[in-house]
Amino acid sequence: MASELRRDPVSLRWVIIAPDRSERPCILKTKDLGKEETFKDITNCPFCRGNEEMTPPEIFRLPKNSAKSSWKIRVVPNKYPAVGIEPEIKHFLFPDLFMTGYGAHEVLIDSPEHNLLIENQPDAQVCLILKGYRERLNDLYKDKLLRSVILFRNHGKEAGATLSHPHSQLIALPVIPFELKIELDGAKRHYEKERSCVWCDSLSGLLGLEYKIRDFTKGEIIKESFLEERVVLKNKNFVAFVPFAARYPYEIHIVPLFHSYSFGLISDKELLDLAWILKRVLKKISKLLNSPPYNYFLHTAPNIEADLRRGISSHWTTIKNDFHWHFEIIPMTNIAAGFEKGTGFFINTMKPEKAAKALRETEIDES
Amino acid sequence: MASELRRDPVSLRWVIIAPDRSERPCILKTKDLGKEETFKDITNCPFCRGNEEMTPPEIFRLPKNSAKSSWKIRVVPNKYPAVGIEPEIKHFLFPDLFMTGYGAHEVLIDSPEHNLLIENQPDAQVCLILKGYRERLNDLYKDKLLRSVILFRNHGKEAGATLSHPHSQLIALPVIPFELKIELDGAKRHYEKERSCVWCDSLSGLLGLEYKIRDFTKGEIIKESFLEERVVLKNKNFVAFVPFAARYPYEIHIVPLFHSYSFGLISDKELLDLAWILKRVLKKISKLLNSPPYNYFLHTAPNIEADLRRGISSHWTTIKNDFHWHFEIIPMTNIAAGFEKGTGFFINTMKPEKAAKALRETEIDES
Repeated sequence: MASELRRDPVSLRWVIIAPDRSERPCILKTKDLGKEETFKDITNCPFCRGNEEMTPPEIFRLPKNSAKSSWKIRVVPNKYPAVGIEPEIKHFLFPDLFMTGYGAHEVLIDSPEHNLLIENQPDAQVCLILKGYRERLNDLYKDKLLRSVILFRNHGKEAGATLSHPHSQLIALPVIPFELKIELDGAKRHYEKERSCVWCDSLSGLLGLEYKIRDFTKGEIIKESFLEERVVLKNKNFVAFVPFAARYPYEIHIVPLFHSYSFGLISDKELLDLAWILKRVLKKISKLLNSPPYNYFLHTAPNIEADLRRGISSHWTTIKNDFHWHFEIIPMTNIAAGFEKGTGFFINTMKPEKAAKALRETEIDES
Repeated sequence: MASELRRDPVSLRWVIIAPDRSERPCILKTKDLGKEETFKDITNCPFCRGNEEMTPPEIFRLPKNSAKSSWKIRVVPNKYPAVGIEPEIKHFLFPDLFMTGYGAHEVLIDSPEHNLLIENQPDAQVCLILKGYRERLNDLYKDKLLRSVILFRNHGKEAGATLSHPHSQLIALPVIPFELKIELDGAKRHYEKERSCVWCDSLSGLLGLEYKIRDFTKGEIIKESFLEERVVLKNKNFVAFVPFAARYPYEIHIVPLFHSYSFGLISDKELLDLAWILKRVLKKISKLLNSPPYNYFLHTAPNIEADLRRGISSHWTTIKNDFHWHFEIIPMTNIAAGFEKGTGFFINTMKPEKAAKALRETEIDES
């Protein structure tokens, strides 16, 4: 059954209704619905070298000119896609509350090796993984019907991974996901008031300026929050830090120290710095928290060129100046309870400054 | 350590930073941080009759004039509160990004019986539980510093409950939680366009009108979605249905068939009808899905009288007409993976019409 995109009339949040995905092997179900999951089956892993025929036809591989069986990273369609490219439904674009589930859902396989976690890969391989992200993003944005690409990694069964061979995923959609929309709106609102990027302003603490928290009823500065306290790791081009209002314990954002609205624009040289910091942050998380399940995802600008070509430009007048791409990493240390789900109000039991200190002080080997 | 309220500068989402809560007995932790949880210890349950001294001092009980040990429902402060009433921080109200965690966090104990789930209680007891909700809401809204109350139930360890004795909780805050803010904004936006309540408009399908989904690029009606298909249960004053864009499999909303912005205004007679439908919906979920963990929560209008008294009235000019209180029930049938967390874009593997049909056809005993 084709999937559907449905929008809640109150929140305007889009939801993917994807009945086919309930057939995928490892989804957790309630007791009477469930089959046991097959997370640990290594011999039949479709992502291992030699099993290339077990996946749907390959979309992309690196090195580009490598022989079919000597790939280093590999991108294939998700076998149980939440959305798919179906030409006949293109005319349903931009309706109010409903459209058929147009889009792409891909799996980006880290490497041919089954048990090598990204943080244990050589820097060059991590760089190749990130290069794969960039190439797929730029390729998908050529489709003018796709308005956004969300790239994410689910590590560990509890974080939603259904296969243990290290991999990331991306979903490309004809709509803007809710959390991204909220960030885009927030970035624009800040820019309209301050004529500056909210991420650059936050980072300015790192650059020697103070990021001040004001009591607006009195105009007083009630707290000065230096970013330094929350920094985990830094190099020339990137900083990894625990955000001021982290929703989860040990939540970490990796943000470029230079302003850039789109991950698609990252240079090969910058990719090296990103690979360096991403790998080491994941290593620290793994060591400090004893290899927890985690999710990370990339927030980058929507497909603004496509929107501009179609004349939907009003949203994006300032986006190149106001939005700043970044990664968000969320280790799973506890369960989001009812309060969070129903309110969007998170209770974080770990003070961000304390989490950052613990991560900063976690020593890792430099292999 | 006192908790803090921190606001993300991009999304403007408030987060409670509550270090004390990491001491509560049953929180799930990563392996190296964790103590084993004590969920099943019945003999020392602080919510059972006879153990009244094990809780912090009682806030409220029903029947009101009952002897201390013959209560039917009982409300006590949460022993590990996410927020607390601390007079000295009142002057931090309405800052931009930070305030100390002012508020209330209470536990509403269903009954003196440890193993009697709400759906197995007599209707009269369920009604008393709901009456407790109303009384606490109205009492807390007398505090003009509290702008919102969120009432919720975590049932089952996986849904965040730390004690198995059936209970609900409420958190009262000096800010508006994010999800509620989004609903308030959505309701207002709809009202400004249509001069009607978006819930009443959605329910109008039930009243014989069609709820139409239009392709806005063409002005065509591309789908007519009758609410009937998604109805689970109905009585004179309430309807329980699976929402059009349900985020989770078997998500159910219970909405009054009469327009009302605040649960605090519900009459004793209406409470009876609500108790009837809530109990039976929970019975159906329990039977169909084999007693899954679940969360439910009440979305009701913020403390508008207090805001008006303080002169913060601009938000609420139309709220009495545009907002419609309701309960949202979310059974846990799978894990929210990285995609949902990072995007706010939910993938629901169960078609809402199919979920509603299964629930509608689940027969329950009428005891």
